[in-house]
Amino acid sequence: MQDYPYTFGISEGIPTHYDNHITRTLSVMAGQFADQGAYDAALAEGDELLYEVYELKRPEVAGELLHGISIVHPGLVGDEYFMTKGHFHAELETAEVYYCLAGEGMMVMETPEGDWAVEELRPGRVLYVPPRWAHRSVNTSRNQDLVTFFVYPGDAGHDYGTIEAQGFRKLVLQKDGRPQILDNPHWRAPAER
Amino acid sequence: MQDYPYTFGISEGIPTHYDNHITRTLSVMAGQFADQGAYDAALAEGDELLYEVYELKRPEVAGELLHGISIVHPGLVGDEYFMTKGHFHAELETAEVYYCLAGEGMMVMETPEGDWAVEELRPGRVLYVPPRWAHRSVNTSRNQDLVTFFVYPGDAGHDYGTIEAQGFRKLVLQKDGRPQILDNPHWRAPAER
Repeated sequence: MQDYPYTFGISEGIPTHYDNHITRTLSVMAGQFADQGAYDAALAEGDELLYEVYELKRPEVAGELLHGISIVHPGLVGDEYFMTKGHFHAELETAEVYYCLAGEGMMVMETPEGDWAVEELRPGRVLYVPPRWAHRSVNTSRNQDLVTFFVYPGDAGHDYGTIEAQGFRKLVLQKDGRPQILDNPHWRAPAER
Repeated sequence: MQDYPYTFGISEGIPTHYDNHITRTLSVMAGQFADQGAYDAALAEGDELLYEVYELKRPEVAGELLHGISIVHPGLVGDEYFMTKGHFHAELETAEVYYCLAGEGMMVMETPEGDWAVEELRPGRVLYVPPRWAHRSVNTSRNQDLVTFFVYPGDAGHDYGTIEAQGFRKLVLQKDGRPQILDNPHWRAPAER
C-alpha cells in the first residue's frame, strides 16, 4: 500500500502491480453448482481453478476505492458455466463498477427482495451494479478467460454466506451450445428463509 | 437514472448511454494557463473546446459510484498543453480511479500540504488517485484525444475554487517538442495562503 498516487498496466489480464492474488478452485464452491452429481464427478477428477482475483490493497474505509482484476476461466460443471461464488456487500448500500477487458460472460445479480437482473459482459463495456445488488460473474465463452476490472467502495466488505445459503435466483446454463438464463430450482425465495 | 443494473459501451470515447454532457472551453479557464498573453491571444481567435465529460447520473451519496468518460482534446496555449480545470474533492477524504482508454497524457496531482505527483496516462493503464489529492488531466499528444474512464465516490463533490485561487504546483509544458514537468511560478504554497 502507498499513499502516493500510482499507476499500473494490465498484461494478459494480470496487473503489473498488485498486493493480493486470490485463487478459487472447485472445492470452495460446494453446493453452488446446480448439478451436484456433475460437481462431484468434476471434483473427483481434480480441484480445478475456476477464477482468480488480483487486488490492490487500500484501507478498507469509506472514501477509498478497492480495485483489481477478476479472471474467470472457461469451463463447465455439467452444463453450468464456470462462475464466481458471488456475494452481497456486507455494507449493503454500496455499488460496484466493472469494466470488461476480455472474453464474454454475464453478471447475474439480485436484491435481498428477490429482484433479479442479468447483464452481458463484453470487452469495452461498463457495468454498473447499484447498491443492494448481489453479483456473480459467469464465463460463457468456451475457451477464453473473462477478464474484468472492478472498483468498489473501501467499506463495502463481502457477505458470501447469504448466497451460499440461498443461491442465486437465476442460473446460466449452456443449452444447444448457447448460454441460457434459467430459474434455479434450489433458490430459496425471501419469504421461505 | 435507474435503480436496476445497466451496461454501456464506449464508441470513440463516447458512452452509448449517458445523462450529462459537459463541455469546457478556453473562456472558463481564465487565469489557469501560465502564459496570460498566449491565453488572451488564443481566446481572441475563438473560444475553443478544451475538454468534455460524459456523466452517468447516480445519487450523490456515499456508497454510490459516480462514473463517466473524460475527453481532453489536443492543443496548446503558448507551450502549455490543453488540460482540465482540476479540482480537489469537496469531501477531501475520497479517492478516484481512472482507466485510460486512448491517447497520452499526464495526471498532475497535489495535496493540501503541497506534496505533488505527476503520473503518465496511456491506454490500458489504471491510475489511483488516493483521498486528499487534487487532480488535473493534461493531454500531451499533438493530435489525439486523451480519453479516460473515471470512477469516484457518490459523496465526493468538487472543490474547483482552491485550484482556481492557488494553481497547481507543477505545470506540464511542451519543450523541444516533448512534455516537461516544471514549477509553476504563480503557485501559492500553503504557508502563503
